Amino acid sequence: MATRYVAKGAARKLRQYAPNTRRHLYDTFPNGPRLMMTRRWASASASSEHAEETYSKQVKYTSESYPNLKRDERFARLTDDHVSFFQKAIGDAAVIANLSGSGEGDLEVFNKDWMNKYRGHAQLVIKPGSAEEMSAVLRYCNEHHLAVVPQGGNTGLVGGSIPVFDEIVVSTSRMNKIRSFDEVSGILVVDAGVVLEAADQFLAEKNHIFPLDLGAKGSCQIGGNVSTNAGGLRLLRYGSLHGNVLGIEAVLPDGTIVDDLSTLRKNNTGYDLKQLFIGGEGTIGIITGVSIICPRRPPAVNVAFFGLESYELAQRAFREAKSQLSEILSAFELMDGTSQDIVHAVTQRKRPLESKYPFYCLIETSGSNAEHDSAKLETFLEHVMSQEIVSDGVLAQDETQAKELWKWREGVPECLGHWGGVYKYDVSIPLPELYQLVEDTRARLHEAKLIGDTDEYPALNVVGYGHMGDANLHLNVAVRRYDKAIEKALEPFVYEWIQKRKGSISAEHGLGLAKKAFIGYSKSETMIRLMKDIKRLYDPNGIMNPYKYI
Amino acid sequence: MATRYVAKGAARKLRQYAPNTRRHLYDTFPNGPRLMMTRRWASASASSEHAEETYSKQVKYTSESYPNLKRDERFARLTDDHVSFFQKAIGDAAVIANLSGSGEGDLEVFNKDWMNKYRGHAQLVIKPGSAEEMSAVLRYCNEHHLAVVPQGGNTGLVGGSIPVFDEIVVSTSRMNKIRSFDEVSGILVVDAGVVLEAADQFLAEKNHIFPLDLGAKGSCQIGGNVSTNAGGLRLLRYGSLHGNVLGIEAVLPDGTIVDDLSTLRKNNTGYDLKQLFIGGEGTIGIITGVSIICPRRPPAVNVAFFGLESYELAQRAFREAKSQLSEILSAFELMDGTSQDIVHAVTQRKRPLESKYPFYCLIETSGSNAEHDSAKLETFLEHVMSQEIVSDGVLAQDETQAKELWKWREGVPECLGHWGGVYKYDVSIPLPELYQLVEDTRARLHEAKLIGDTDEYPALNVVGYGHMGDANLHLNVAVRRYDKAIEKALEPFVYEWIQKRKGSISAEHGLGLAKKAFIGYSKSETMIRLMKDIKRLYDPNGIMNPYKYI
Repeated sequence: MATRYVAKGAARKLRQYAPNTRRHLYDTFPNGPRLMMTRRWASASASSEHAEETYSKQVKYTSESYPNLKRDERFARLTDDHVSFFQKAIGDAAVIANLSGSGEGDLEVFNKDWMNKYRGHAQLVIKPGSAEEMSAVLRYCNEHHLAVVPQGGNTGLVGGSIPVFDEIVVSTSRMNKIRSFDEVSGILVVDAGVVLEAADQFLAEKNHIFPLDLGAKGSCQIGGNVSTNAGGLRLLRYGSLHGNVLGIEAVLPDGTIVDDLSTLRKNNTGYDLKQLFIGGEGTIGIITGVSIICPRRPPAVNVAFFGLESYELAQRAFREAKSQLSEILSAFELMDGTSQDIVHAVTQRKRPLESKYPFYCLIETSGSNAEHDSAKLETFLEHVMSQEIVSDGVLAQDETQAKELWKWREGVPECLGHWGGVYKYDVSIPLPELYQLVEDTRARLHEAKLIGDTDEYPALNVVGYGHMGDANLHLNVAVRRYDKAIEKALEPFVYEWIQKRKGSISAEHGLGLAKKAFIGYSKSETMIRLMKDIKRLYDPNGIMNPYKYI
Repeated sequence: MATRYVAKGAARKLRQYAPNTRRHLYDTFPNGPRLMMTRRWASASASSEHAEETYSKQVKYTSESYPNLKRDERFARLTDDHVSFFQKAIGDAAVIANLSGSGEGDLEVFNKDWMNKYRGHAQLVIKPGSAEEMSAVLRYCNEHHLAVVPQGGNTGLVGGSIPVFDEIVVSTSRMNKIRSFDEVSGILVVDAGVVLEAADQFLAEKNHIFPLDLGAKGSCQIGGNVSTNAGGLRLLRYGSLHGNVLGIEAVLPDGTIVDDLSTLRKNNTGYDLKQLFIGGEGTIGIITGVSIICPRRPPAVNVAFFGLESYELAQRAFREAKSQLSEILSAFELMDGTSQDIVHAVTQRKRPLESKYPFYCLIETSGSNAEHDSAKLETFLEHVMSQEIVSDGVLAQDETQAKELWKWREGVPECLGHWGGVYKYDVSIPLPELYQLVEDTRARLHEAKLIGDTDEYPALNVVGYGHMGDANLHLNVAVRRYDKAIEKALEPFVYEWIQKRKGSISAEHGLGLAKKAFIGYSKSETMIRLMKDIKRLYDPNGIMNPYKYI
């Protein structure tokens, strides 16, 4: 019985930590604004621009880091005539060209990713302002065998939006208008280049939310989100883009405008072709418009943060949350102790919990009735504390505290890059084995003597965090420098490990350039053949985002 | 102030009608079983079999009702050699042949739909027992140019699963095993031939539910549900199959087994090809297995039934329900007064409300906490009664009452067929104009003197009902006999009406044979061309479900 008493004490401790928590939160925000989380990516992107002088010479060209990749000589080389055509077709201001240089100057920001991992040689950036302009551009490129890289907010993690050689960057950033919103049905229609956060802020005024949320929100564009089938923080509650996107407008390489911008929740009229573009990573066409169903903004939002003694207990906490919080559970995030140590080391912020734990979970609930949600959450908290599933926890008392707690999860990716770089794997694994991958990877790097506390070791740390609710782990290796020895230790090791568990080598980040060679670990030869058939059907000249995907 | 008092009186009346309603419901069913609705379709199917003697001679062959359709002579005619091959490949018991007759005897049930509207000439039915057997069958058919109709539970409404000429019926009914279920993730893997209700009952024991529910549940098969992208009653809450289906196994005409039976919630590894089969209506391959994410079974279920004075008020009630019931709203169904008069006339059951109203709504809530849900519902009810949005209403006191209320919605399709037949349209229309289609159609049939109370008129009634939550209307014309004059009055009138409002001519029932000619009202020429490209890619010989879809 002694343990029970301890547990009950723990439950009291939690309530003491956050007195009158829920009431306070709702009094302060009677209209229940959605938590405005700090978007670390936005600042990461800014700081990478700032860091250009320091880094740009250090960032290797992708063509050098992947020496096996050769420029496909079927593709034409750019001439001044090409540039003139584009200038006439969509206006001088929408074309940035530097045919003599190789991705320098104004072009540099389009040629590099925010992680300083990929770098291309594009000499031309084109920004069509409409589907019609996009159609003229792509038709010309297709006829003249000019290779193209579609680019949205350029926040990707797998090099999908960065040219490898001299592909033309076709940016959707000028297509940034909200086309329509219907308050009764919640159906939003936007241009592809609308920034996710801008859409969400627009929806906030209409008392709705975008059914997708992710760290890169401040920079990423909805067209890119849909093209990469981004998952993010709200998937647990609102489901995937395959379900929420109702229609798309896209342009095929031959200039065909795929006008499938339905605003109907149900529409069974033939093959659902738009689905091929969701997650198609710009390899068969470029999305120019999106229609999506958006839920009502939940007036009540709660955020709690726990420390747990083991991964096994984190799994139990998740099962309890699913069962007890059910329809109001909107996020269940896992962070290991190392990831939180790193955030602490980089930000020097005060930790949410006094003691340190090997695992942490962040839970968010979103519902329509503050009192009911609080009651459900309280019952849940008392249960997991009294059962000693959770060792300690805090509950945000107001929006500021909620934001602060979210930073301990959302800040992980940026903080990991603090010492130089990060090897990132975004994988799906059946829940029971999810964290084992982190431990096995850590052991492997130790064995290979590639990881350690001093500068002689290229790797610093192996961490695991992610969307536990979707069995989606982010395995990250923080490094002092990118090093082929680490890459060799990690690949194909990580992919083989996942293949054995029938997991996915790409849960939500896509294939891009990073995983092109490894799709065989998640898809059969038959599936790859069928995918190549689709690619050939839509893009027979192969001009769309070459060297990547499959 | 007088009206306000009346309204408050009405609210009291409602509470009086169902005293201690919620408590009673939950006391009786402490473990909160999901309401087991009576499946009218199942009995309709049985009664249509029973009615065979009466009807079978009256049911016209589809080839006669659609004289423009000609048998495609590229397809081979069946021989005894073909039959022998199939008998050897999958066993005698799995093959039903009658090459001399034309769809008679044992074959008749496969050659007709339950509405007695479509009738084919198939001489052969094949029931493969596995994906491998399916592969052998389809490869042979493809090589020998034998046309094929995939058939599941044969509960469709558009003739999609009925042969037109002598196509071979390939039935999935022998593939009826539940392959696996994971209680932590809620991911279910089943054979295509598993009956929806069987899956739901299996899940009930595991405290989960199937994320799709529809009237034909007792007969329809999951493979057919996925092939037709069935919508149904739970879409409002759980979203569409495009979001919930995680993987499929399907067989292509050339025998290729598409092994895409992922059990991962997130998996971004290439084009999401399975989506083409969801709603593909068996025209590019046959689904043999499905992996789907299933939610926890909500322990608290409430059902309420209202009378309303106008469609405008029904819209207001829906808006209020969305806002106040939010995450627990699991169904919002609309039925017009005529539809309820018909159910009453056919079943002679006591009406749920004393007075008659031009419109009725059925609301279902499903949540994890009975007390919270009741409180939310009570607040909502008091609001809509006091605002005179709703004129009268009842709340189910127990499972039996809830079932009874659902019958007034689910019984509509069967009762409509009572006098002979039904012309059925399943459409999506923006909510404000949704019901106008019913009124305009009614007026049109009156003008044409095709509708009336006596036998000289072929049509009896025009009714509207459906899933208001999804802007999905079922426009039904109950007739004494099928009559070309009615068809001409209805088509293309209905389709043009919908096209003008940018609606969909097929919301959840699919295209099948019924709407093949009309897809142009909902899709552009470009979209149709792109769909035909997909069809050609997968089924170059055109053997899969010919004469239908696009």
